[in-house]
Amino acid sequence: MILILEPNIATDHPDYQRLMTYLDELEGIEHRVHRVHGAEQVLSEVYLIGNTAALQEDEMGSLPAVERVIRISDAYRILGRHRDDEREAAFTYNGVEFSQDNLHVFAGLCAVDNPQNVERMFQVLQQHGQTCARMGAYKPRTNPYSFQGHGAGCLPYVFELAGKYGIRVIAMEITHDRHIEEIERALESVGNPTGVMLQIGTRNTQNFELLKFAGRQTRFPVLLKRGFGITLEESLNAAEYLATEGNSQVIFCLRGMKTNMGDPHRNFVDFAHVPVVKRLTRMPVCIDPSHSVGSRAASPDRIMDMMHATAQGVISGANMILVDFHPDPKRALVDGPQALTPDEMHLFLEDVAIARDAYERRRELAARHLTAD
Amino acid sequence: MILILEPNIATDHPDYQRLMTYLDELEGIEHRVHRVHGAEQVLSEVYLIGNTAALQEDEMGSLPAVERVIRISDAYRILGRHRDDEREAAFTYNGVEFSQDNLHVFAGLCAVDNPQNVERMFQVLQQHGQTCARMGAYKPRTNPYSFQGHGAGCLPYVFELAGKYGIRVIAMEITHDRHIEEIERALESVGNPTGVMLQIGTRNTQNFELLKFAGRQTRFPVLLKRGFGITLEESLNAAEYLATEGNSQVIFCLRGMKTNMGDPHRNFVDFAHVPVVKRLTRMPVCIDPSHSVGSRAASPDRIMDMMHATAQGVISGANMILVDFHPDPKRALVDGPQALTPDEMHLFLEDVAIARDAYERRRELAARHLTAD
Amino acid sequence: MILILEPNIATDHPDYQRLMTYLDELEGIEHRVHRVHGAEQVLSEVYLIGNTAALQEDEMGSLPAVERVIRISDAYRILGRHRDDEREAAFTYNGVEFSQDNLHVFAGLCAVDNPQNVERMFQVLQQHGQTCARMGAYKPRTNPYSFQGHGAGCLPYVFELAGKYGIRVIAMEITHDRHIEEIERALESVGNPTGVMLQIGTRNTQNFELLKFAGRQTRFPVLLKRGFGITLEESLNAAEYLATEGNSQVIFCLRGMKTNMGDPHRNFVDFAHVPVVKRLTRMPVCIDPSHSVGSRAASPDRIMDMMHATAQGVISGANMILVDFHPDPKRALVDGPQALTPDEMHLFLEDVAIARDAYERRRELAARHLTAD
Amino acid sequence: MILILEPNIATDHPDYQRLMTYLDELEGIEHRVHRVHGAEQVLSEVYLIGNTAALQEDEMGSLPAVERVIRISDAYRILGRHRDDEREAAFTYNGVEFSQDNLHVFAGLCAVDNPQNVERMFQVLQQHGQTCARMGAYKPRTNPYSFQGHGAGCLPYVFELAGKYGIRVIAMEITHDRHIEEIERALESVGNPTGVMLQIGTRNTQNFELLKFAGRQTRFPVLLKRGFGITLEESLNAAEYLATEGNSQVIFCLRGMKTNMGDPHRNFVDFAHVPVVKRLTRMPVCIDPSHSVGSRAASPDRIMDMMHATAQGVISGANMILVDFHPDPKRALVDGPQALTPDEMHLFLEDVAIARDAYERRRELAARHLTAD
Repeated sequence: MILILEPNIATDHPDYQRLMTYLDELEGIEHRVHRVHGAEQVLSEVYLIGNTAALQEDEMGSLPAVERVIRISDAYRILGRHRDDEREAAFTYNGVEFSQDNLHVFAGLCAVDNPQNVERMFQVLQQHGQTCARMGAYKPRTNPYSFQGHGAGCLPYVFELAGKYGIRVIAMEITHDRHIEEIERALESVGNPTGVMLQIGTRNTQNFELLKFAGRQTRFPVLLKRGFGITLEESLNAAEYLATEGNSQVIFCLRGMKTNMGDPHRNFVDFAHVPVVKRLTRMPVCIDPSHSVGSRAASPDRIMDMMHATAQGVISGANMILVDFHPDPKRALVDGPQALTPDEMHLFLEDVAIARDAYERRRELAARHLTAD
Repeated sequence: MILILEPNIATDHPDYQRLMTYLDELEGIEHRVHRVHGAEQVLSEVYLIGNTAALQEDEMGSLPAVERVIRISDAYRILGRHRDDEREAAFTYNGVEFSQDNLHVFAGLCAVDNPQNVERMFQVLQQHGQTCARMGAYKPRTNPYSFQGHGAGCLPYVFELAGKYGIRVIAMEITHDRHIEEIERALESVGNPTGVMLQIGTRNTQNFELLKFAGRQTRFPVLLKRGFGITLEESLNAAEYLATEGNSQVIFCLRGMKTNMGDPHRNFVDFAHVPVVKRLTRMPVCIDPSHSVGSRAASPDRIMDMMHATAQGVISGANMILVDFHPDPKRALVDGPQALTPDEMHLFLEDVAIARDAYERRRELAARHLTAD
Repeated sequence: MILILEPNIATDHPDYQRLMTYLDELEGIEHRVHRVHGAEQVLSEVYLIGNTAALQEDEMGSLPAVERVIRISDAYRILGRHRDDEREAAFTYNGVEFSQDNLHVFAGLCAVDNPQNVERMFQVLQQHGQTCARMGAYKPRTNPYSFQGHGAGCLPYVFELAGKYGIRVIAMEITHDRHIEEIERALESVGNPTGVMLQIGTRNTQNFELLKFAGRQTRFPVLLKRGFGITLEESLNAAEYLATEGNSQVIFCLRGMKTNMGDPHRNFVDFAHVPVVKRLTRMPVCIDPSHSVGSRAASPDRIMDMMHATAQGVISGANMILVDFHPDPKRALVDGPQALTPDEMHLFLEDVAIARDAYERRRELAARHLTAD
Repeated sequence: MILILEPNIATDHPDYQRLMTYLDELEGIEHRVHRVHGAEQVLSEVYLIGNTAALQEDEMGSLPAVERVIRISDAYRILGRHRDDEREAAFTYNGVEFSQDNLHVFAGLCAVDNPQNVERMFQVLQQHGQTCARMGAYKPRTNPYSFQGHGAGCLPYVFELAGKYGIRVIAMEITHDRHIEEIERALESVGNPTGVMLQIGTRNTQNFELLKFAGRQTRFPVLLKRGFGITLEESLNAAEYLATEGNSQVIFCLRGMKTNMGDPHRNFVDFAHVPVVKRLTRMPVCIDPSHSVGSRAASPDRIMDMMHATAQGVISGANMILVDFHPDPKRALVDGPQALTPDEMHLFLEDVAIARDAYERRRELAARHLTAD
C-alpha cells in the first residue's frame, strides 16, 4: 500500500509527525518514506510493507497528511504502475527533467579515449543545442585481454570539459560500487561543473550488490539496462532493487536481447517493449540503438538500420536515446564500427525530431478518438 | 548471373530467339526465364545457373536483347539484392501494385466465421477506401481439438462479397497444395470477382513441398511468413524456393519470433528487420502486428501496443500490414482477444498514415543529406 | 474419457455391438475406436469426446465389453499419460516391438546416394545383429539449390536390399503425403521385403496436413521429430494430431533445439527431456544424436561428443536411436561431417550397451529403494 | 606462449633467476608466473603476453629452467586447452584433488537456515563418506522482497560444524568482493576447520569486477557458473578473467540455460556441454542438476528427472556435482521444491556410482578401440 502525502509537506509538520507515530504502532507493517523531487514540488510517498491486506483504504486515507491511498500488487511495488495509479513519473536532476512524457538524446563516446575527442564531442553537442551526453570510462569487456576503459583517471577532464560546453548530465557506466565514490570525488575535485547519471550495464543487471549500492545513494539518478537472457519481468524486478534501497530516480534502458534470431543485427532489437515498460512501471524508458543494431548498414532508402531502430523507439514514446558518436570511428577503442560521426549529428537529430513529432501526433489522435467515443 | 533483357521484349522477337539459341549451347549452364509484370512494363530476366564463373560480363552484356548483366552471389539468387543491383522490386496483381516503395493495409478476419461478418468487414473496408483484405479460411491450430477453419466451403461467398465491395486482393492462408486448386476453382465458380494472395504461415515456412507448389503457379502472388525458431537467413532461403520454381511475386512477412524474451507480447516483435529484408532482398516487406503482439493492451498514452508495433514497422518502411479486425471480437472463433473492431478502423488507418508520412519525410531527409555531402 | 475394452474382443462380438449402440445414443458425445496391436494381444480403446463431464465413471465401467475407464485431462488425450494411467505403451510392427521399455538402434544413411553404399550399410548392420535401419530418400534442404534426395527412384532397391540383409524396419523421412503412396507402391512392387517407419522431420512438425495424412493410414508407424522454435508441449500436441486421425503407433524423437546457446554443437542437445516425454505421454522416445551434435569432435577422453550425447539419452531411458553412418563420410551427399563409419559400428553399439546396462541397473535401484520405503 | 618450467623448481633457484632476468629484458613482452599446486608437485608456468609471434619456440625451450613450450591461440590463454597441449588439469585444495579425471559430490543446503539443519546435513554427509558439501549463505534473489540469505552471521557455525564432521571443502556462493574477506575472517575466527570453494553464480558470470577480486586471491579455488543469455564461449572467457589475475584453480559449472524451450524443466539442461568444456579448456567440469531441473518430478521408471540429468552429466565425464539436499524441503527458505532429503542420499550416491562406473567403462572401451586401430 502506498500513502501519497500532501505535496511539499515538511517532515517536521505536526501532521507528518502524527502520521509517523501512527504508522510506527501498526503491528506487522513496516513503512518507508520516499521523497521524490519533481520539477515543481516535492512529493512524499510512504510505502507500507507487510500484512497490508488487513488495512482499510478509507481509514488510511483519512489519516493526517495523507492525500491519497494506492493499493499495490506485489510486482514492482515502488516503481510499478498499479491499478488506478495515475501518479506522474518524473524527476529533475541538475536542471534536466526526466519523465515518461519527454525525450532526451545522450550522444557521445562509448569509451573515452583522449581529451581531444572528448572536447570535440562536447563541442558538437553544444552546437546542436544538446545538454546531455554519454561517456564511458569503465568498460566491461567479454575478453579479459581487451581494453577495459581509462577508468577514474579520465574523469576530471571529462567533467571539466562537460562543464565548459554546457553539458548538464553525463550517462556513465559503472561496474563496481567504488566507481560511485570515484565519480563523486572527481566531480568535487573540479567543482561539480556537470552531473552524472550512473549507468548499470546488461552484464550487471542482476548484480544485486551493485544495485543496492546505487540504490542507497540518491545523489545520482540511475540508468539500468535490461539484462540479456532473462525475462523483462526479471529486469524490472532488478530496477525495483534500486528503489527498495531508496533511489527511485531510475530510467530503464532497452538495448536488444542476445540471440541469433536477431541476426544480422548484433542484438534482437526489443523496442516494441517501450510501451510495455511504460504500462508496467512509472520509469522513463531509454533505448540504445547503437548496441542493439551494432553496425552502420543501411537499407536501399539510404537510412541506416540504427536510425530506423531509433525512429521505431521514438515513434512509440521512448524518453531517452543513448547513441554512440565518435570523431573518428575507425580509431575508436571500443564499438567503432557502429558509431556515428559528428557530421551526422544534424541528420540524426532531425530524424529523431520527425519520429518524435509523429509520436506526438499519434498521442493526440488517440486522445481525440477516446474523447469522441 | 542474371541477364536483364530489354523491356517488353516479346518471346518471339528474333533477338530473343537468338539469345535463347546461344544460351542453349552454353555447356554446364542452365538458364531459366522469369517474366515480371510491373505496373508499366514486362521485364524479362534470365537466370544462368551452374558454372557461371567462366562467363565474361561484357561478353554476355553484348548478346542480342540483353540490356544489363548482374553477377550474383550465392545467397537468394533470384529474390536477393546483389551488389550494384538497383533493379526495382515491384509487381502488379489484379490492378494493385506491390513494391518496396508503397504501403497497403490488409485488414480483416483471421478466421472466417459467417457471411454476415465477412460482409460487414468488406463494407467497412470499402467505406475507408481500402481495396485489400485478409480472410482466413484454412486455420492451422496447435491443438488438434481446436477449430480448424471453414475451409473450401466458405470460399465462394467470401469471393463474391469481396467483389461486391470492390476488394481486389485477399490474403488467405493455405496449408496444403490442394487449397490452391480449391481457391482457383472457387474463384472461377463465381466469376473471378476478386484476387487472392496465397499466404504461407510460420508453421509451414520450411514446408518445402508446399513452397514448390506455390512457386510452380504464377497466377497468385505469395505472402511468406518468417518461420519461428530459424534464422532470418533460413526464412529468406525459403522464399527463394518459391522463386526457384518460377514465382517471384513474393512478399515477405515479419510476424514476431516465438520466445519468452518477448513476454508479455505473444511473440518477440521483429520489425527492426524491415530494413534488413529490404537490403538483402528485393521483396516488399509485410508486418503482422496482430500476431506479433497478440493483445489489446495499451500504454498510459492510450495507444495499444499493437498500434505502436504497427507504427514502428511503418516508420521504417514496411510495405504491407496484415491486421485482424472483427465485428465482434468476443465471439471470434480464433484470435479474438487481439482483434480490432470496425469502430477502430478510422483510428488505425489515421495512425498508420502519420507513421507513413514520417517515413516519407525521413526518406527525403536522408536523400537531402546524401546530396549535401 | 477412455473406455478400455476386454482384450482381443472382436468387433462382431455381441457385447461390442451393444456397447456401440449405447454410445451412438449418447447426446453430445462423439466416440472413436482405436485398436492397438500389442505383442500378444489386440487392445481396443474407445475415446469419448465432447461433454464427457456428465458421464459417471462407474456407470460407464459397467457397460458390456468395458474392462476399465480412464478419465483424461485435455492435453494429449490419446497419446498422453493421464492420472492413474498405467496402460502399456507398446506396439509391434513387422515383428519388432516398440515400447517405453526397450531400445532399438536405427543406423544408416542420412541420404541414400547409390546402391553400393546402401548394400554396404545393410551388410554391416546384419553383421552386427541389427534389424532396423535409417535411410533418407526425400531430403528437405534449407537452400533450394542443395541436393534434395533421390526420392521415389531409389525406393525399390533400398527395400530389396533391406530384405536381403534381414532389415525389418527402415525409418524414412517423408515431406509430402504423396510420399506415403510412393513408399507403399515401391514396397508392393518388390514384394514387401521389409517395413517402413514414416519419419516426419522438424521442419514439418506443425505441418498439420501432413500429420493428418500420416495419421489416417495405419499401415506404417510414424516417427515424429520435435519441432524447433516451439515448446515441447506444442510438439507433443503435434503428435496428438496423428493419433486423433487414427494412428497411435507414434514414436517421438528428440533432435536438439536450434539456438546459438548450444554452440559449438549444431543444436542444443535436449535429451534431458527423455524422461519428460515418457512421463507426459505413452510414446516410446527416440534420440537423434547425429543431428543434435553435428560433428565428430571428441573430448580428451577420446570419446566423440556424439557418443556422449547418445549415452546421455540411453542412460535416462531412450527407446530408439537414429544415427548417421556412411561407408565414406567425406563423399556423403548430406551430413557427411557427422557420420560414423562402418568400422565404428562395433564401438558405437558397445558404448550404447554400456549405457543401457547402466540404465537398467538404475531402474532396479530405484525400484528397490521404493520397495524398501 | 606458455613456458612450462621444471617441476618443483624454487623461485630462488639460479636457473629460475636467470630466466626471469632474460624475460624482463624482452621488449613488448609481459610475463606472469602461475604456480599450480598439484597432488604431488608444484608446477610453474610462465605466460608470455604481447608480441609473442616474434619469439622462436626452440630458442625459448632452451632457456634455463624451461622444460617445454606451448604456443597458444588467443582464446582462453591460460585455462584453455591448446594444440598439442596435454598438460594435466588438476589442483589439490585442503587435501582434496580436483581434476578432469575424478568426481566429487557437493551436496547440501542451497540456503543455510539454522544450525540444526546444517548439522544434520553434515552428519548425513559424513555417514555416507563425503568430504565436500554445498552451503549457501549469500543468496542473490530476483525479487528484492525475497529472503536474501543469512550472510556473514552464519559462517562461524557453518565452518565449525563442517570441521566437526570432517567436511574439507564447502562450495559457497559469493556476490560481492567483501564476502571473500568475511569468509576468510570467519574461517580464522574458528581456527580454519574446513576449506571453502568460492562459487560465483550465473547472475554474476560477467561481473568482471567480482571475477578480478576472486582471481587476485589464491587462497580459495573458484567455482564459476555458466551465465545465462550468453554463449558458452563468453562464459569460458569469464573464467579466463579469474586466471588472468592469478588464480587458475577454477572449476566451471553447467547449470542449464534459461529459455522456455527447456520447459517443464526450470532451465534447459546443458550437460551435453560437459565434454565440450573439457575439450576447450583444462578446467574440471561441475554440473548442477538441482537448479537445472528444478523439481522432484519423476518418470514412469520412478527415477526423478533430477537424477536422470545427474546421470547424464556423469556418464559423459562430469567431475563435480552440486546438489540440493534439505532435512525438511517443505520448510526450506529457498529452492525447497527441488531438494532431496537425507533419506535419499544413499539412493542418489548409488545412482551416481552406476553412472560413473559406466563412464569409466566407456573410457576404457574408447581407449581399446583406438589401440586396436
